[in-house]
Amino acid sequence: MKFPLRIGLIGAGRIGQVHASTITTRVPQAELVAVADVVEAAAKSCAEAHRIATYGNDPHTIINDHDIQAVLICSSTDTHAPLIEAVANAGKHIFCEKPIALNLQQIDRALAAVEKAGVKLQIGFNRRFDANFKRVRDAVVNGEIGEPHIIHIISRDPAPPPIAYIKVSGGLFVDMAIHDFDMARYLIGSEIEEVFVQAAVRVDSAIGEAGDVDTAVTMLRFANGVIGTIDNSRQAVYGYDQRVEVFGSKGAINTLNNYANQVVINTAESVHRDLPLNFFMQRYTEAYAAEIEAFVDAIANNKPVPVSGYDGKMAVVVAMAAKKSWLERRPVRIEEIG
Amino acid sequence: MKFPLRIGLIGAGRIGQVHASTITTRVPQAELVAVADVVEAAAKSCAEAHRIATYGNDPHTIINDHDIQAVLICSSTDTHAPLIEAVANAGKHIFCEKPIALNLQQIDRALAAVEKAGVKLQIGFNRRFDANFKRVRDAVVNGEIGEPHIIHIISRDPAPPPIAYIKVSGGLFVDMAIHDFDMARYLIGSEIEEVFVQAAVRVDSAIGEAGDVDTAVTMLRFANGVIGTIDNSRQAVYGYDQRVEVFGSKGAINTLNNYANQVVINTAESVHRDLPLNFFMQRYTEAYAAEIEAFVDAIANNKPVPVSGYDGKMAVVVAMAAKKSWLERRPVRIEEIG
Amino acid sequence: MKFPLRIGLIGAGRIGQVHASTITTRVPQAELVAVADVVEAAAKSCAEAHRIATYGNDPHTIINDHDIQAVLICSSTDTHAPLIEAVANAGKHIFCEKPIALNLQQIDRALAAVEKAGVKLQIGFNRRFDANFKRVRDAVVNGEIGEPHIIHIISRDPAPPPIAYIKVSGGLFVDMAIHDFDMARYLIGSEIEEVFVQAAVRVDSAIGEAGDVDTAVTMLRFANGVIGTIDNSRQAVYGYDQRVEVFGSKGAINTLNNYANQVVINTAESVHRDLPLNFFMQRYTEAYAAEIEAFVDAIANNKPVPVSGYDGKMAVVVAMAAKKSWLERRPVRIEEIG
Amino acid sequence: MKFPLRIGLIGAGRIGQVHASTITTRVPQAELVAVADVVEAAAKSCAEAHRIATYGNDPHTIINDHDIQAVLICSSTDTHAPLIEAVANAGKHIFCEKPIALNLQQIDRALAAVEKAGVKLQIGFNRRFDANFKRVRDAVVNGEIGEPHIIHIISRDPAPPPIAYIKVSGGLFVDMAIHDFDMARYLIGSEIEEVFVQAAVRVDSAIGEAGDVDTAVTMLRFANGVIGTIDNSRQAVYGYDQRVEVFGSKGAINTLNNYANQVVINTAESVHRDLPLNFFMQRYTEAYAAEIEAFVDAIANNKPVPVSGYDGKMAVVVAMAAKKSWLERRPVRIEEIG
Repeated sequence: MKFPLRIGLIGAGRIGQVHASTITTRVPQAELVAVADVVEAAAKSCAEAHRIATYGNDPHTIINDHDIQAVLICSSTDTHAPLIEAVANAGKHIFCEKPIALNLQQIDRALAAVEKAGVKLQIGFNRRFDANFKRVRDAVVNGEIGEPHIIHIISRDPAPPPIAYIKVSGGLFVDMAIHDFDMARYLIGSEIEEVFVQAAVRVDSAIGEAGDVDTAVTMLRFANGVIGTIDNSRQAVYGYDQRVEVFGSKGAINTLNNYANQVVINTAESVHRDLPLNFFMQRYTEAYAAEIEAFVDAIANNKPVPVSGYDGKMAVVVAMAAKKSWLERRPVRIEEIG
Repeated sequence: MKFPLRIGLIGAGRIGQVHASTITTRVPQAELVAVADVVEAAAKSCAEAHRIATYGNDPHTIINDHDIQAVLICSSTDTHAPLIEAVANAGKHIFCEKPIALNLQQIDRALAAVEKAGVKLQIGFNRRFDANFKRVRDAVVNGEIGEPHIIHIISRDPAPPPIAYIKVSGGLFVDMAIHDFDMARYLIGSEIEEVFVQAAVRVDSAIGEAGDVDTAVTMLRFANGVIGTIDNSRQAVYGYDQRVEVFGSKGAINTLNNYANQVVINTAESVHRDLPLNFFMQRYTEAYAAEIEAFVDAIANNKPVPVSGYDGKMAVVVAMAAKKSWLERRPVRIEEIG
Repeated sequence: MKFPLRIGLIGAGRIGQVHASTITTRVPQAELVAVADVVEAAAKSCAEAHRIATYGNDPHTIINDHDIQAVLICSSTDTHAPLIEAVANAGKHIFCEKPIALNLQQIDRALAAVEKAGVKLQIGFNRRFDANFKRVRDAVVNGEIGEPHIIHIISRDPAPPPIAYIKVSGGLFVDMAIHDFDMARYLIGSEIEEVFVQAAVRVDSAIGEAGDVDTAVTMLRFANGVIGTIDNSRQAVYGYDQRVEVFGSKGAINTLNNYANQVVINTAESVHRDLPLNFFMQRYTEAYAAEIEAFVDAIANNKPVPVSGYDGKMAVVVAMAAKKSWLERRPVRIEEIG
Repeated sequence: MKFPLRIGLIGAGRIGQVHASTITTRVPQAELVAVADVVEAAAKSCAEAHRIATYGNDPHTIINDHDIQAVLICSSTDTHAPLIEAVANAGKHIFCEKPIALNLQQIDRALAAVEKAGVKLQIGFNRRFDANFKRVRDAVVNGEIGEPHIIHIISRDPAPPPIAYIKVSGGLFVDMAIHDFDMARYLIGSEIEEVFVQAAVRVDSAIGEAGDVDTAVTMLRFANGVIGTIDNSRQAVYGYDQRVEVFGSKGAINTLNNYANQVVINTAESVHRDLPLNFFMQRYTEAYAAEIEAFVDAIANNKPVPVSGYDGKMAVVVAMAAKKSWLERRPVRIEEIG
């Protein structure tokens, strides 16, 4: 293994640029040497902003570059699985944004290629790297609250995405709640066995017309007996709302939201503070950086990646079960999927 | 109507004594003139503590006393419905502890007697009178958070009751969650249409052997489209935990727990505060007094009681549906009950 | 000692009525048997509200009643010292509102009479009985924060009293900060040795014209080396503000304000809660009751009173030193007073 | 003005490296081209870590380099004033760590050189750029709390510096409280007119033997009538404690401490959270970056610097007055200094 690690970036959209910035400014063990985007102007702009030597519109230039040791896949969802396969076949390590794919055959084929190539694959569940959620996980692992009995996740966006996005994203369970299914598995450290969903269109009827819901509560039953709920809304008018609570035999853990400042103002009308950090780019800045640092560290020190391809698959499987529960209005066992 | 209102108390156990104290010390419009308890010593002790003129072991002495205008029924659950009937037939107003009964025929018969007699009946859902929950209800009614979309209720006891109690109480859904079913209906102002339960025995296997659960999450769907969850545990080791969150189109409301003091201590180990108020007698002291004040006020000023017999019935109905959902492991519509 | 203890009340104003209610409803060991007020209508109204047998406009009726064992002095400040003397001479125990007097000769004469008569005298520094401040004191005593180094007291009223009151009250240091001087002595458990004041008229120029200030910060140095500050304002528009912080070798304690509810509302504008409890009658309801319970307990069980005549004197002495510091714009040693 | 702005760094210690990292990773408008440190190995190590082309042990190499447009002075305090003079004479813009110097003649001479050269000089009062304190300042400026009446600053370090440092630093008022004197001036926007100090040695007697104190409270009076206090301790065992409160005619602002996470854990013993961020490098990470961004922005867009040389001088002047107050045990007017 040569250092600094030479990394290529496929997909120079918003999240691709975040990762480019992380590697350039915070990861001395790694170097971003090439960027590809189907929109060549995007690749060029990203290359210039982050002083990346090479750019272009063809990901295969990166895949075929023998000097590149690892690839970040930040392109559109439909390309994830084929790119994982191609990059794995080229013997490079892979960091891929979620979801791996929206169908299980594609996911399994991609994971098989990774397995066969013996490369590392890390999925971009950035929230696992957030200081709050890591602390909750630590508390659970350390037994600070004993055996966990119940988990609640609140995960609300400040505003819905464009309807056009909803039409292709797979819908709330796949594009949004998937993070929470992963978070639930991560925090509890056990597999989800059954889901039951109540959902509705409360925010925007156009979302319903696009075949999706904007408000959902998912109940979970885990293999280790823990019961969970996930609360999702496409629109919390007060801003991005990301909290969890884990209750156990020796106590409970609550996380509060994150705010840009810790200032409280008391006036004749109320005691108030500013709204929480508005959305994921502000809320999870550090988590995005930390996941890339962890990926490079896993390669550099030949450690297991902290979010595996299997984790990536299971979040999709649970999302599919949740969608099925909503459509069929009944509890769905995870083993019914796939 | 003569004043002060002359009130009789049936049942001089813990909650009966709380109400006796309220009337004696905080309700100048009312006077406690007689107390009955099947354990005469209990009646005597209560009479002496609260300077009540008459006591005995027979509730009918109170029911037949023409000078008594209202009766508080604080005796054991199995006596509630027949006593409501008898007191209503005697033309007296009634305050009755929850639950009215554990079977619907009894409840309906008691409510019919009340209806026929034209007396007032208030059910002892004291939590509606708690400052936190009243403020949440006010916020919902005032539209402070727009249309409600989701409600979460956390309701955890500090320690399980004796197994002997669990065997006769009807179990967690009827003896404990019933408060939360009422709270959900109260805060949202709409009927629950469907419930789905995940439950487990995690605290004490003896509870399971007694045919009950000690850990349960109930998902609710309301007639107005709101989705809800209720989190119940028989044992939160850190103390009584009573919180709600209502999320809506224009915001969200959270209640924190109540504490005996507002002191935070920072040491080299942690930033900490004392545990919350330990149990319902401390946590709901004011609410218990306020419900009795409201009952007397409803009589004195001929206003509707704030918690009706119908409210008392519906909480039992939802509890029955929840128990059925747990037993049959499926969503249960409320209309399936009764 | 006969029980219930027979108590007389001198002064049926606001605070006299609060104590009357406490004795009637919360102190079974005591009985309020007589009330006197120079305004006889006030005495009558108080007697009727609390079912007190005897009332009148002459305090000496109470002082001379051999069946009365203890007296609460809640009349105007100028009467406190002579009444203490008279009641002590009559051999009765005394609870007296603060301040004992505004001049030291009067105070010393009253305390000498108490000493000579061997009766108990408790001064009405109710805040010592507040759950927050008691918890802070306990933490200091228990060594939870090690040796105290610094104390800060915030004590702000929601609105200034009438100018007429300010003209006779002795001013901010004597009528308002006196509570905080006592609190500082209580929490630290050491005598104040020196004070230095910065003060101003910021709220209402009429207060300045009346010879007083409305905004003041007092720095304290204690005999045990602790340094302190007291922040007083006649007008916190957001409501009554009563907090302390004690910092020590092993940590720090902060108290938050008290609120009527624990509800937080998140909207598109802010995260807010309702204002704190508005003023002392709401904020210190429990503390007022607890001080009377403690007084009766001290008599019933022949224990030292928790707030002595000496405590009452020292708070006045420190207030005088603070006023002197303000007038002379220099640090003033307590020993300069008297 | 050419861009990216070419910057030289004098002093490659801890804070010099922080600024080097900021320029390299967050300020595309600027480039760090040279670093000098009297310890050449430190300069070399810093140059390698941040890919700086030139390094050496002589600051004059930087001062004499015509291609360098601005210089960061991060060397030891005694070198600040002469270096400011030299860099100003060379016509370069200057960012200098606090304090400018420990004697007024030196400060005035340095400021005169800056004035004459017409270059920009920004002093490193990083806390002004902290999100909490900026928000407080904004609230004051926007009138959110009306006219300010009182300010309190809490500023406690987690542990004392080495005694060797205390012996040369000028002591607590100059090396530590200086930040708070600047903060007080910044938040209130008015000059301090008088100070009065109570101080003690409570943490470590060796600090007293070195001629310094470790515990101090400073009272301030501002030209605009505001009264203030500053609470300093060399040792808060629970961690770095940085808070302010501003009270005014229309309300009050409080800042809480900053924490690494927002997790609260409830157990049978207490409700607790982890300690606050430990020290200034964690607590003020963003503020350090923001002050450098502001410095570059001031040059790039020819705007006034946000912290002037005069600000740098006044903080030293107030520190000198505070020290004098402590030594002479009396209030000291600022005009007595210099």
